[in-house]
Amino acid sequence: MIYIKLTKRQEEIIELVKKNQPITSEQIAQILKVTRAALRPDLAILTMTGILEARPKVGYLYSKKGSNNIIYDYIKEITVADIKTKPVIVTEDTMVYDAILQLFLNDVGTIFVVNNGYLTGAVSRKDFLKIAIGNTDVHKVPIGVIMTRMPNIITVTDEDTAYEAAKKIIEHEVDSLPVIEKIVTDEGKEVFRITGKVSKTNITKLFVKLGSNS
Amino acid sequence: MIYIKLTKRQEEIIELVKKNQPITSEQIAQILKVTRAALRPDLAILTMTGILEARPKVGYLYSKKGSNNIIYDYIKEITVADIKTKPVIVTEDTMVYDAILQLFLNDVGTIFVVNNGYLTGAVSRKDFLKIAIGNTDVHKVPIGVIMTRMPNIITVTDEDTAYEAAKKIIEHEVDSLPVIEKIVTDEGKEVFRITGKVSKTNITKLFVKLGSNS
Repeated sequence: MIYIKLTKRQEEIIELVKKNQPITSEQIAQILKVTRAALRPDLAILTMTGILEARPKVGYLYSKKGSNNIIYDYIKEITVADIKTKPVIVTEDTMVYDAILQLFLNDVGTIFVVNNGYLTGAVSRKDFLKIAIGNTDVHKVPIGVIMTRMPNIITVTDEDTAYEAAKKIIEHEVDSLPVIEKIVTDEGKEVFRITGKVSKTNITKLFVKLGSNS
Repeated sequence: MIYIKLTKRQEEIIELVKKNQPITSEQIAQILKVTRAALRPDLAILTMTGILEARPKVGYLYSKKGSNNIIYDYIKEITVADIKTKPVIVTEDTMVYDAILQLFLNDVGTIFVVNNGYLTGAVSRKDFLKIAIGNTDVHKVPIGVIMTRMPNIITVTDEDTAYEAAKKIIEHEVDSLPVIEKIVTDEGKEVFRITGKVSKTNITKLFVKLGSNS
């Protein structure tokens, strides 16, 4: 995808047309204090791209076809599969203390929990902190007891956009989302394999990548 | 700032020129199986915007002037001042336990610490968790003892871009940056007032805003 940045004068012309439509090229030239000939390339670009509409014997009109929400279009092409990273996973019988160690060792914010290979729960740094300052003996309680359990976990799939993932993170006030794949077992039960995670860190990294001039 | 999205054919032309430059409009027309007249508006746009260069008797050349990094340009205009939010602040003599309560009450990831109104430290959820599972009595130790102390805190100012803030967050592996204002006291000492914070949450919210089609 390639975009062209409009020049200052082209933007001025758009503003003029928006406010005074219909407006002729003579009138635009007069206001901007330039010749009609000087305006020609700019008006050509603006009409050919559909931002302005040239109506014979009437003048120029502003057309809403020329979308200016570039970022939206661009961002909508980035999927969860593009930005997901490896999740840190423990089993339900892991002691809370050991899960916290995994959190530090891997420097992540959320631990995901599986049972028989399928996602069953998640525990955030915040959840762990709550437990740690409470009366729970973190060495004796398994993570399965304190975790947030499916289906109360907000999830995404590979095909979701990065934008949708970010929106879920903000709306549900969570730090990280497991990327899941739904499987129906032979017994007709729905289970979920975890194939990655998307966290605020992944979104922030994506933001940095988008803004990098390279 | 307004951008124009190139049409599929315009992108095809750019690719053709990139690979075969210099190339004449006749050659482009032949390859794309269209008439030269049909190509004229596209070539006009591509040269007027500086993406292609038309050299008489030579043909079209690809010019690197036409930047295609839209997001970069756009993001560079958003400053820390635009996205910062209210920081949660305690004084150095606050007990660790009470600081953790503030963290939960305000649902933030980092607590900032001041002394005489000036920023002296920061403590993240991760730091708190480390303390909480250790042997420290969180009810008896003031936060001033465990905090990361200035100048070892990564900071930003209002004028920095959101991009720079995000980059610092990723590079230094922190969750939140205090937004500071440097003040030189009457005694010539440099001190820092905290006026806000920028966290991964703020960046994620900004990303959602950028991607919102409204």
